[in-house]
Amino acid sequence: MRADVQRFSLKDPSDVSGLREAIDKSIIDPAKIVAVIGKTHGNGLVNDYTRGYLTLCLSQLIGARIEVPAEEVRRRVPFVFSGGVEGVLSPHYVVFTVDPNTTPTGEEKSLAVGVALTPELSPLDIGRQRQIDVTAEAVGQAMANAGIQNPDDVHFVQVKGPAFTLEDVVAAGAATCATDNPGKLMGFGRAASALGVAKALGEIPANLAMENAVLRNFRAYSSVASVSAGVEVRVNEIIVAGLSRTWSGPLTIAHRSMQDALDINSVIALAGDLGLSPAPQVSIAQARRIRAAFVKCEAQRDGTIRGRPHTMLNDGDIDQQRHIRGAVGAIVAAVLNDTALFVSGGAEHQGPDGGGLIAIIAEKARASNAVA
Amino acid sequence: MRADVQRFSLKDPSDVSGLREAIDKSIIDPAKIVAVIGKTHGNGLVNDYTRGYLTLCLSQLIGARIEVPAEEVRRRVPFVFSGGVEGVLSPHYVVFTVDPNTTPTGEEKSLAVGVALTPELSPLDIGRQRQIDVTAEAVGQAMANAGIQNPDDVHFVQVKGPAFTLEDVVAAGAATCATDNPGKLMGFGRAASALGVAKALGEIPANLAMENAVLRNFRAYSSVASVSAGVEVRVNEIIVAGLSRTWSGPLTIAHRSMQDALDINSVIALAGDLGLSPAPQVSIAQARRIRAAFVKCEAQRDGTIRGRPHTMLNDGDIDQQRHIRGAVGAIVAAVLNDTALFVSGGAEHQGPDGGGLIAIIAEKARASNAVA
Amino acid sequence: MRADVQRFSLKDPSDVSGLREAIDKSIIDPAKIVAVIGKTHGNGLVNDYTRGYLTLCLSQLIGARIEVPAEEVRRRVPFVFSGGVEGVLSPHYVVFTVDPNTTPTGEEKSLAVGVALTPELSPLDIGRQRQIDVTAEAVGQAMANAGIQNPDDVHFVQVKGPAFTLEDVVAAGAATCATDNPGKLMGFGRAASALGVAKALGEIPANLAMENAVLRNFRAYSSVASVSAGVEVRVNEIIVAGLSRTWSGPLTIAHRSMQDALDINSVIALAGDLGLSPAPQVSIAQARRIRAAFVKCEAQRDGTIRGRPHTMLNDGDIDQQRHIRGAVGAIVAAVLNDTALFVSGGAEHQGPDGGGLIAIIAEKARASNAVA
Amino acid sequence: MRADVQRFSLKDPSDVSGLREAIDKSIIDPAKIVAVIGKTHGNGLVNDYTRGYLTLCLSQLIGARIEVPAEEVRRRVPFVFSGGVEGVLSPHYVVFTVDPNTTPTGEEKSLAVGVALTPELSPLDIGRQRQIDVTAEAVGQAMANAGIQNPDDVHFVQVKGPAFTLEDVVAAGAATCATDNPGKLMGFGRAASALGVAKALGEIPANLAMENAVLRNFRAYSSVASVSAGVEVRVNEIIVAGLSRTWSGPLTIAHRSMQDALDINSVIALAGDLGLSPAPQVSIAQARRIRAAFVKCEAQRDGTIRGRPHTMLNDGDIDQQRHIRGAVGAIVAAVLNDTALFVSGGAEHQGPDGGGLIAIIAEKARASNAVA
Repeated sequence: MRADVQRFSLKDPSDVSGLREAIDKSIIDPAKIVAVIGKTHGNGLVNDYTRGYLTLCLSQLIGARIEVPAEEVRRRVPFVFSGGVEGVLSPHYVVFTVDPNTTPTGEEKSLAVGVALTPELSPLDIGRQRQIDVTAEAVGQAMANAGIQNPDDVHFVQVKGPAFTLEDVVAAGAATCATDNPGKLMGFGRAASALGVAKALGEIPANLAMENAVLRNFRAYSSVASVSAGVEVRVNEIIVAGLSRTWSGPLTIAHRSMQDALDINSVIALAGDLGLSPAPQVSIAQARRIRAAFVKCEAQRDGTIRGRPHTMLNDGDIDQQRHIRGAVGAIVAAVLNDTALFVSGGAEHQGPDGGGLIAIIAEKARASNAVA
Repeated sequence: MRADVQRFSLKDPSDVSGLREAIDKSIIDPAKIVAVIGKTHGNGLVNDYTRGYLTLCLSQLIGARIEVPAEEVRRRVPFVFSGGVEGVLSPHYVVFTVDPNTTPTGEEKSLAVGVALTPELSPLDIGRQRQIDVTAEAVGQAMANAGIQNPDDVHFVQVKGPAFTLEDVVAAGAATCATDNPGKLMGFGRAASALGVAKALGEIPANLAMENAVLRNFRAYSSVASVSAGVEVRVNEIIVAGLSRTWSGPLTIAHRSMQDALDINSVIALAGDLGLSPAPQVSIAQARRIRAAFVKCEAQRDGTIRGRPHTMLNDGDIDQQRHIRGAVGAIVAAVLNDTALFVSGGAEHQGPDGGGLIAIIAEKARASNAVA
Repeated sequence: MRADVQRFSLKDPSDVSGLREAIDKSIIDPAKIVAVIGKTHGNGLVNDYTRGYLTLCLSQLIGARIEVPAEEVRRRVPFVFSGGVEGVLSPHYVVFTVDPNTTPTGEEKSLAVGVALTPELSPLDIGRQRQIDVTAEAVGQAMANAGIQNPDDVHFVQVKGPAFTLEDVVAAGAATCATDNPGKLMGFGRAASALGVAKALGEIPANLAMENAVLRNFRAYSSVASVSAGVEVRVNEIIVAGLSRTWSGPLTIAHRSMQDALDINSVIALAGDLGLSPAPQVSIAQARRIRAAFVKCEAQRDGTIRGRPHTMLNDGDIDQQRHIRGAVGAIVAAVLNDTALFVSGGAEHQGPDGGGLIAIIAEKARASNAVA
Repeated sequence: MRADVQRFSLKDPSDVSGLREAIDKSIIDPAKIVAVIGKTHGNGLVNDYTRGYLTLCLSQLIGARIEVPAEEVRRRVPFVFSGGVEGVLSPHYVVFTVDPNTTPTGEEKSLAVGVALTPELSPLDIGRQRQIDVTAEAVGQAMANAGIQNPDDVHFVQVKGPAFTLEDVVAAGAATCATDNPGKLMGFGRAASALGVAKALGEIPANLAMENAVLRNFRAYSSVASVSAGVEVRVNEIIVAGLSRTWSGPLTIAHRSMQDALDINSVIALAGDLGLSPAPQVSIAQARRIRAAFVKCEAQRDGTIRGRPHTMLNDGDIDQQRHIRGAVGAIVAAVLNDTALFVSGGAEHQGPDGGGLIAIIAEKARASNAVA
């Protein structure tokens, strides 16, 4: 097994020219695509339709090339798009491919990828025990698909779950949902899904992976989960990325927790983990080794950062997620010398409270030496 | 002469409790206040009234203590407030005081501060030659007031000029203004004022300090100018901060240009200039030496940052200034370990195009050692 | 007793020139001011400081003229400002004065006004039984002050209650508040206060004026309550306006419920109640009789209006209150030929669900004839 | 010739279920579709991708049914979508079909529709003479296609022209474009296109249909033009709708100018022109006769409405177009008892300054009687 990861710039949410060209040039075999993760132009909130737009365009492109209906592509391949490219961030998407026909050397670990889907979720399931449990089960399947046994080898678990508009919530029975506010329901969904990941990986004891911890006990978290929600899906889609000796190839992955929004040191340490030498900015030459970076972050719930007040949670004009994505994204971009980052807000139970996750897929150090 | 700089947190735009307490405790002599610069809760655009609100409250407090009408305080003391505390930024204000009754040792340079005002400006003057010229003249006066002869000793020139609402523009004759768009007129005013600073300091030849360079020739810029505009003033208020052997005290100042929004290296280098040892984040103990930091920044005009597209200039929901303040503010905060930064957008002709200025006032290294 | 109501345009939130001139010209006796209600330039959400700014400026003006400290004026006089002048709406404020030294003819009812305040409320009280009960009590006091016995003679009860920032909520114990979301807590406060009004006026039975009806049972509502919340107050301020034979003067008041956002017919009917003849727009001459108009409205909770979907509750860029104020405000303005309307969102339990209240103070028909 | 117009609700920008069902039930023959106009969920500004998303989905549906590539459908059929359903407005689209195989009675005029396209326009053409002239020419072609000779029989000319992102503007040479601001360039394009319509219909003399009148001489306008701009087209697409005795069918069209944002009387008069009896609200039964309503509006340029200030042009948080669409849309909706209205901002040279256009397609009065 061998995983590859290619990143493409996105001029607008229908711009699939990057992948098209890569397919045309045989850089990517469309039949081997297992997942796509990206950052689109919308606001990243309930009424962001850029995620669905790109999903449609990519699934049609892939479907046309592998002669499968686009709907079928969407059922097979998780398309995980987060809207909101605030500040310096740049719209892009990352294509994961898996080639089963390779023989690993068994000497060193390489990037391993596995995907799985939960059954369909209704508005009533969001934030509830069922979402926790089916997510945990699907994470286990995705690990198995990736050939990873040891949870310590899992460095990134992306979950994309459903968001619902007010119309959906009303149809399902607003009073019986975890909340009748569509934006807040997205938060419940991210929280329960993250607890599901933590449960599957044994990061928290079973008695904390319960519905009553959702958005309440923030000491219960997963250090590798990254959860987004969008109106364009109805199941939790799971992508597990980690390391395995049964996989080969030039790529590796690592992750760290950011302790808070100013935790630049963890970003730098993570770059070092990958054999990069940030000073503190990664050089342009080394930055070319980065294939994808995934960041989760959130506005600190107590209204302060390192003792000083912030105003993100009181702002009626700009949503807190847009604020924090722009801020943390800039810090990570300044270190990595790269603005095409997947930075997603809403980090409930995904890393330490007020902090979050950063995971990077990069070419292994030797590969880099050869290039530089 | 001896300058002091104290920074206070701002709970809401009427919160003058910090200065009040400092006066009550004789930490600040209200009669010695020469300028106040700060960052308030509003959007930093035309309809931001938090700047005027804080100006009123501070001028009333100071007026009450020195037994002078608040209006008179406002005429004497520049109050330069920029709205917009996006992302991690924290609302605050910085009070500059000057004590004339001290004898400098003459051995080392210390922070020197001088202020001056231009005559009143009408909407018709904004972005025009008159604004350039009266600003240049006032900068010269402020330098003289600060006892600075050599332009190289000037590290920061804050200008606060007038903004006008549509009503003002219409009353003045919209067709004869540089633009009839109130938000865009703010940009013209910042640009002309910056060229005025550059002219005064000899940063650009006289033939570039002309109205026809305004918002056109971005190679003409000042590397120490920081210009804001607000509806609450009608003149250009000038604050010059630099270094002089005729001043004494524990404070120093330095500045650097940021070349673009990701130029974290210049922030770190500047911290080093001040004797701090960022690694790359300044330690909490060292961060206490920072008395104020001033940043100007802007969304790169060609729509890219280091070759990758950004979306700040196409966004109909969040103004480009709010985007870039949040991004650059976070990078600077991550290095300085300090979120109470004056970060202001609209850096037209204030530093390299797409980049901007960063200036820091800090306790001299020795003072820090004593503390640490 | 005789009530007068004067309305002034507001150029910016510190513009008190209208009242100042009226005092200078003896049109208004500042000692007789009992309440001020207005619409300011901010967003009307948690981080709207224009309400406090105008409160400060007006209280200082009045205090200076009656030789009482501004703080004391703010304790005596309710200043009820709602931010947000979306669409055609125009910033303004309405000054209520009461002259006790007049003898009513007893022949016809005239505008009667009474005010009262509750004790201070903490974040923990918001949305709770205590807020319902102290509001109900204060409404009773305000009616007594207005000399109104019959609840049917009450046409408008304005309540201004406290809003809290995240900092306040955290300090009070976020987990024990009705919600830890500052914006949502404003909704709880409006809801409980409205139920308090309904309880005082006997509009709902006592068993519905309970904490468990707050934001749950929307059939429980007051048809005359209008509730706003803002960070600048800590008590519920109550203004009761109605009709009484013990009052004299040229003014009258009437109200109607709007059944939904498109209920233009109720607006027209109300104009007719006041002796205006809308066709359907009130003529310019007749519009001069209007002294003040108060509207409460909200985005219909089921996401539809008359069977067609609206999108206000899914919008991450513009708050639902800003949407609905702009829409309903325009409809009322088109009928009344007047854009200086107090239109306030968040009509929880204030009129029928999805609809709201409209109350108008106008010169009695005869007075108008004399003028026209 | 016979024109039909069907309107469909839009759950999200990819929701083409309405048209699909109409095709499946043979209510609409997809081969006869000549134009689609609609209102989508986005912000209606430069970064609104919901227009392109719906265009893609509809063109694919139609293409699949008539066995033509979607790209070819987009070349043949104008898809004119305006983003922004502020306030009470409801997302929807209106499908125009033309059946050439009918024999008119010649007794009465019926709805006639014609379309035409200009050649491709570059950023450099926008707001310039070329855009005026090619638009005028295409309007003439569309009239000919509609069989309308007399300009008085033209009641609605929809133009959809290109918008460009900053990237496009920079590539074309920002300094040589009418403006380098993408949002402002949309205004230049709407203005020049409207002058092109006015030129074609003889509404203004040739010497006013000149580039130097664009955004300068607002007395030069078309009373039937409605112009939108979006990044998803590169030509000006023209749809002419009017009345002709050479067409048959149950539909008619009429239009009026709104003189300003409060001109409800013109809306009511127009409803009367169509045989509806607004009182002032059209009854539910009569409202069913309305097939489509098109409104152009804008924030009055002098910052006032009927003498009172508005704040739409100073707002840094909500674009002026979003404000005015929400306000004028609500007024029209309240009269028509219908919220699925095409309300579009940016009415430069489209109706009187500060006002705009309203055009309605409805079933003829007799048809209505039969129904009611």
